[in-house]
Amino acid sequence: MASPVSEAVGVADLETVRELARQLRVDSIRSSTSAGSGHPTSSMSAADLLAVLVGRHLRYDWDNPADPANDHLIFSKGHASPLLYSVYKAVGVITDEELMTGYRRFGQRLQGHPTPVLPWVDVATGSLGQGLPDAVGVGIAGKYLDKSPYRVWVLCGDSEMAEGSMWEAFDKASVYELSNLIAIIDVNRLGQRGPTELGWDLATYAQRISAFGVKTIEIDGHDIDAIDAALTEADGYNGPVAIIARTIKGDGFSEIADHEGWHGKPLPADMAERAIAELGGERNLRVRGPVPSPSLPRPAALADVRITLPTWEIGTKVATRKAYGEALAAVGARGDVVALDAEVSNSTYSDDFKKAHPERFFEMFIAEQQMVAAAVGLQVRGYVPFASTFAAFLSRAYDFIRMAAVSHADIRLSGSHAGVEIGADGPSQMALEDLAMIRAVGGSTVLYPSDATSTAKLVAAMADLDGVSYMRTTRGAYPVLYGPDEEFAPGGSKVLRSSDADVVTLIGAGVTLYQALAAADTLAADGITARVIDLYSIKPVDKATLIEAANATAGRIVVAEDHWPQGGVGSAVLEALGDGSAPLRLRHLAVRELPGSGTSEELLDFAGISAKHIAEAARALLA
Amino acid sequence: MASPVSEAVGVADLETVRELARQLRVDSIRSSTSAGSGHPTSSMSAADLLAVLVGRHLRYDWDNPADPANDHLIFSKGHASPLLYSVYKAVGVITDEELMTGYRRFGQRLQGHPTPVLPWVDVATGSLGQGLPDAVGVGIAGKYLDKSPYRVWVLCGDSEMAEGSMWEAFDKASVYELSNLIAIIDVNRLGQRGPTELGWDLATYAQRISAFGVKTIEIDGHDIDAIDAALTEADGYNGPVAIIARTIKGDGFSEIADHEGWHGKPLPADMAERAIAELGGERNLRVRGPVPSPSLPRPAALADVRITLPTWEIGTKVATRKAYGEALAAVGARGDVVALDAEVSNSTYSDDFKKAHPERFFEMFIAEQQMVAAAVGLQVRGYVPFASTFAAFLSRAYDFIRMAAVSHADIRLSGSHAGVEIGADGPSQMALEDLAMIRAVGGSTVLYPSDATSTAKLVAAMADLDGVSYMRTTRGAYPVLYGPDEEFAPGGSKVLRSSDADVVTLIGAGVTLYQALAAADTLAADGITARVIDLYSIKPVDKATLIEAANATAGRIVVAEDHWPQGGVGSAVLEALGDGSAPLRLRHLAVRELPGSGTSEELLDFAGISAKHIAEAARALLA
Repeated sequence: MASPVSEAVGVADLETVRELARQLRVDSIRSSTSAGSGHPTSSMSAADLLAVLVGRHLRYDWDNPADPANDHLIFSKGHASPLLYSVYKAVGVITDEELMTGYRRFGQRLQGHPTPVLPWVDVATGSLGQGLPDAVGVGIAGKYLDKSPYRVWVLCGDSEMAEGSMWEAFDKASVYELSNLIAIIDVNRLGQRGPTELGWDLATYAQRISAFGVKTIEIDGHDIDAIDAALTEADGYNGPVAIIARTIKGDGFSEIADHEGWHGKPLPADMAERAIAELGGERNLRVRGPVPSPSLPRPAALADVRITLPTWEIGTKVATRKAYGEALAAVGARGDVVALDAEVSNSTYSDDFKKAHPERFFEMFIAEQQMVAAAVGLQVRGYVPFASTFAAFLSRAYDFIRMAAVSHADIRLSGSHAGVEIGADGPSQMALEDLAMIRAVGGSTVLYPSDATSTAKLVAAMADLDGVSYMRTTRGAYPVLYGPDEEFAPGGSKVLRSSDADVVTLIGAGVTLYQALAAADTLAADGITARVIDLYSIKPVDKATLIEAANATAGRIVVAEDHWPQGGVGSAVLEALGDGSAPLRLRHLAVRELPGSGTSEELLDFAGISAKHIAEAARALLA
Repeated sequence: MASPVSEAVGVADLETVRELARQLRVDSIRSSTSAGSGHPTSSMSAADLLAVLVGRHLRYDWDNPADPANDHLIFSKGHASPLLYSVYKAVGVITDEELMTGYRRFGQRLQGHPTPVLPWVDVATGSLGQGLPDAVGVGIAGKYLDKSPYRVWVLCGDSEMAEGSMWEAFDKASVYELSNLIAIIDVNRLGQRGPTELGWDLATYAQRISAFGVKTIEIDGHDIDAIDAALTEADGYNGPVAIIARTIKGDGFSEIADHEGWHGKPLPADMAERAIAELGGERNLRVRGPVPSPSLPRPAALADVRITLPTWEIGTKVATRKAYGEALAAVGARGDVVALDAEVSNSTYSDDFKKAHPERFFEMFIAEQQMVAAAVGLQVRGYVPFASTFAAFLSRAYDFIRMAAVSHADIRLSGSHAGVEIGADGPSQMALEDLAMIRAVGGSTVLYPSDATSTAKLVAAMADLDGVSYMRTTRGAYPVLYGPDEEFAPGGSKVLRSSDADVVTLIGAGVTLYQALAAADTLAADGITARVIDLYSIKPVDKATLIEAANATAGRIVVAEDHWPQGGVGSAVLEALGDGSAPLRLRHLAVRELPGSGTSEELLDFAGISAKHIAEAARALLA
């Protein structure tokens, strides 16, 4: 680095911004060429936009990324990470050396796409169409909970406008009147493999976005004055804004600017050299831009509160979805707990929370992707979101759930109406894959309580869990099994029947626990003593209790689950016992044929997971 | 049923249509009341729309649902099944008795939400926001492949307009200029738990939809003349059309019309009686509407063709994603094979197909939900779709994949860039849950070949598979292991190393197979003989070969997979062996910590799934 550091703190002048824009291009090229991969051209198209934003508009105390008054900067087009990291260098929070030796390398924090291993990154991006929906969650936190004037700036790509989730986000930005949300769309007209659908048709983008209730401003994204005017106008507007910027992919290097075939490709060394020369050489500007005023209000810390969970008498019939709603309302005594639903709160019973804490309930209508993204955005600001819908429809948001884990996000999901148990509505409404889906998320917790007491205790536990946690609830009402003093924790289980005479172990979770208990009764009538385990924690699973049971019953285990055979309760048991730590002769009862409509009883029986089948499987193991 | 059957075949007059609309309301009430569940009010709002459509516009030979010239009728709002089934009664393909005793009952075909167990249903609906995207696929088939003038009529709900997937569908309807697609939006302003976002703001719906390039017509959805005029206009328009109909939920019964709290509730018997009286009593009209003219062109049957798959020399380094593309292009010699991609065809190599068969390649841009839905729609018309994107991004479409199984759809998916093997791009691009996700789809097939030869053979096999099938491909190039005569089939495996002296079994799939082979070499140098299995078929799995190996090696098995530990290759092996049919002491190597960027080698090592770790696990089993 030849040039000395010159420093601009506070609102940079436009000439400094122009210099900064050149530096961001140069550094985007240098970092990706040094890494041998990355997206310099998608960075160069947005360099002017970012230079103006960071130099003159973004209010951010780079020495204190935890300041709650800081603005938020989200790269929805996460592949432009060279640009983001070049910004970090320009504001002085990473060194040029880190940029040149850390980008995309093993063990380093400057990953191929941004993740919150970096303290200035709110959410992981890289799966397109997620940054803007996440930002809607941050915007909701700012406007409705923090009540702080921070802004949420989102750099979007034009290709990702084809994702439906972007339109869910514009819609909700409008419904929630998020005047703190400013999307900047980098319309460089070229996607990965060629032109985008709309090219440089800014008018159509504007027509669509404004139809969704978001103000639009169309600009030349390489005109520094126009960018500055647009950001000023957007900041002053009382509603969500999208700045639609016509840009050139690879802008600044004439050999490739606006050329196809340069997506996601670093420049070879010789081209990089020519590009840097054309851009006026390397620079080492430091530009920090404005900081949030110390006088801005910061949210106060919440007082500790005592949660009083609802209780039920043993034997009362209560649906776990109802217990979930009541427990969630109780846990809502904590002022940081928020709830979201996708227009089915009267079925998931998250409306119990809404009634108790309407100011912390956010209706997402039928937009499950946006619901999960909003949860991710809310937890960026320290809130404790619980998002509920039918378990089957969480599959709509799987990419968002997966990415929540990459974001190190702490979010809680609840899926009601699981399995064939739901009955007459038929297979479109039956979650039969949700346990597999969420177990296969890094660091997740999967809970499936059978009764109201265990549900309530686990809802309270979820509020303190890290990562993605999930509770599956049941449509129908079943007897309360546990008294109010019984404790439940992720990773636990309950042995409901046990004696030295046990010859077989029956494992159920949720609705199948009742079937296992009934099967144990049947078997007992024939003198066959069965151990019964309530495996309410599917991940992590209580390996010690499973080993003990397998040893006690010579490996004879029957698992019954209201789920496809793959990846659910049976898999959890097999993972715990398959290493040879105990004998294992497992009979796995699960849904193996596409169900139709019917009553719960008919369908549990059709699926081969009812008490009768469990007892038969146990007898077969003993034969 | 008191009244005699009166019959109208051909275009019904408007008075007959009015009568039909009353009958559809009455029958929607009767069927749901008799079932004790269902959605009469959401049916009543759309009864006039359907009466006009079925009586005067839908060209459908009810005696021959397989006629390729038939129009298509898709209920995107699948919960209005009482209305759909009442239409089936009115056209005479089901009896009143079936309607009254079969709806939502166990073992019956009139399920809670429509599925293709009924010959007149193209696709299962009930997860909102899917019928219209599916219809786009049918429309593409009609316009570009069948080249037949059939129309695709889709009844949409207003609540589902909040799903991003609807906007993906409008966008693609416009991009593909689907003049055969007519969406009818039943704007009854009430969702499940209260008013929708936009209520009766038809102008905003129209503004949004027309901004997406779809012509809109706003009408009073209870004005028979206006409906008829709109359907006529839509049919004559040279592009996709959305008819936006202002309707009243529960229309026709004054006690509940436009009332909140009546979503998804059958009327109690006394209310049903009053409603039927208000509607003028039961009717037994038969109205069939127009049929497709015999002179309309029907697509010709395809000639059988011989597929010549590409071949490679053993030892050549070829990425399986590249072999997939080449094989797909070869399989495309069959005229019924079509390919779709989500704007990454130069990465998935589906562009090999595009180059060979451009007329059967459909670019979906970055809209994975619409991509899978289009595949479902294309197979409705008998085509054999292969849809490709990065494996990680198939998670975006999981609800569509789940519903494809409920639709009994035969679709083929390919996900490239799986696992930590992809390297520098980082975790947002690494599929680590795809095997679990698709294994947990009813009736699915999951394939994960390691080399080019097996990939090509399995691509050819996929073309003939029923249900949802999935192939995971790898980014990097690895040596071809098999000669061109080696055969591969779903449910199979290959034993690559085997002897009577085997003391441990090493199981890999895809990239980890190479690590297992390397580990076997290391172990052999120490005199430890390992069996090595290429488990290229993850579902179904080759249980017999696994049992044989477990028996031969005293249950000592090491599985290594580039996937989270839950639900993938390890689970498949455990499911096969956990029943006690063979000894089992499994060491399961999988990705257990969130990876970052790095090289393939660094990351396979970081994840503990490299040759070194496999050899270590084998030694530990032998210790």
